[in-house]
Amino acid sequence: MTAPGTRLTIEPLTAEAFRAFGDVIEASDAARHFTINQGFAERYHDLARIDTAGGGGHSVVSIFKALPRTFPLAITLMERHPLGSQAFVALAPMPFLVVVARPGAAPGPQDIRCFLAAAGQGVNYARGTWHHPLIALDAPGDFLVIDRGGVADGGNCDEIALPEGALWLER
Amino acid sequence: MTAPGTRLTIEPLTAEAFRAFGDVIEASDAARHFTINQGFAERYHDLARIDTAGGGGHSVVSIFKALPRTFPLAITLMERHPLGSQAFVALAPMPFLVVVARPGAAPGPQDIRCFLAAAGQGVNYARGTWHHPLIALDAPGDFLVIDRGGVADGGNCDEIALPEGALWLER
Repeated sequence: MTAPGTRLTIEPLTAEAFRAFGDVIEASDAARHFTINQGFAERYHDLARIDTAGGGGHSVVSIFKALPRTFPLAITLMERHPLGSQAFVALAPMPFLVVVARPGAAPGPQDIRCFLAAAGQGVNYARGTWHHPLIALDAPGDFLVIDRGGVADGGNCDEIALPEGALWLER
Repeated sequence: MTAPGTRLTIEPLTAEAFRAFGDVIEASDAARHFTINQGFAERYHDLARIDTAGGGGHSVVSIFKALPRTFPLAITLMERHPLGSQAFVALAPMPFLVVVARPGAAPGPQDIRCFLAAAGQGVNYARGTWHHPLIALDAPGDFLVIDRGGVADGGNCDEIALPEGALWLER
């Protein structure tokens, strides 16, 4: 594809770079961790702000079986969950792409960033963070998802369209 | 080991067999599932009763880096979390063992059962279900754990000792 518009830069995923969008879920030395289970496990504790209780909500655990995308990939929509956070952790060590924009007004192409979640890294979108649907790479993959269930008057998913051809992604 | 006492039977893990103890977390056809993300993902929805809100609690996501056990393994202790559920999902397709007893009075050896979680299966212990600490097999492995955080007057972990040599596990 000889695309007009802007090609997104793929940035490394770090807790600091991702702070405005949510949490990186990983067993890093920077996390609080301690030994449990008579020495048979190290607990990397409380890695994400799971924010599902608003409006009488609760945490829901699901599995997404995702198909890989093909590239170049046009980024033509973004969504957000105004009532709760949403976490994604791959159930095998595999990378995936995370396309986000800060909570608030609907983002334009210039507001959108892309991070490469490496094998062993998951993400938790903060409530209201704009994000593209899951972008799996290379092969089908399963992801554990922790998000909000419960009554959602007016819905818990806003979606916006981006101008065709304005933004795309190449590996 | 020429052990006295009882050798635990290792049972296959099914939702039905595990019902008295909690949930099996897996993308099975029996789960409610539907297509999302413009056809790029199938969502297996709400696979576990995450019960973390009691007593002002909330959901906490952690990673356990577990070391494998050696066998035969003596089962000498069980624990329970009286205030909340606790889920374990392996972050790579690998089996692990799940040793449980029903909520209620402290179990004796005869009350304890063992299930083999196959690759792709996780578990969620219901609040109060007695369980042995995580039993990883073969190699070190990472597990995503979803349990309860928050104030816990009197603690959220009860532990009991079982008689030495009364119960053991062989692969």
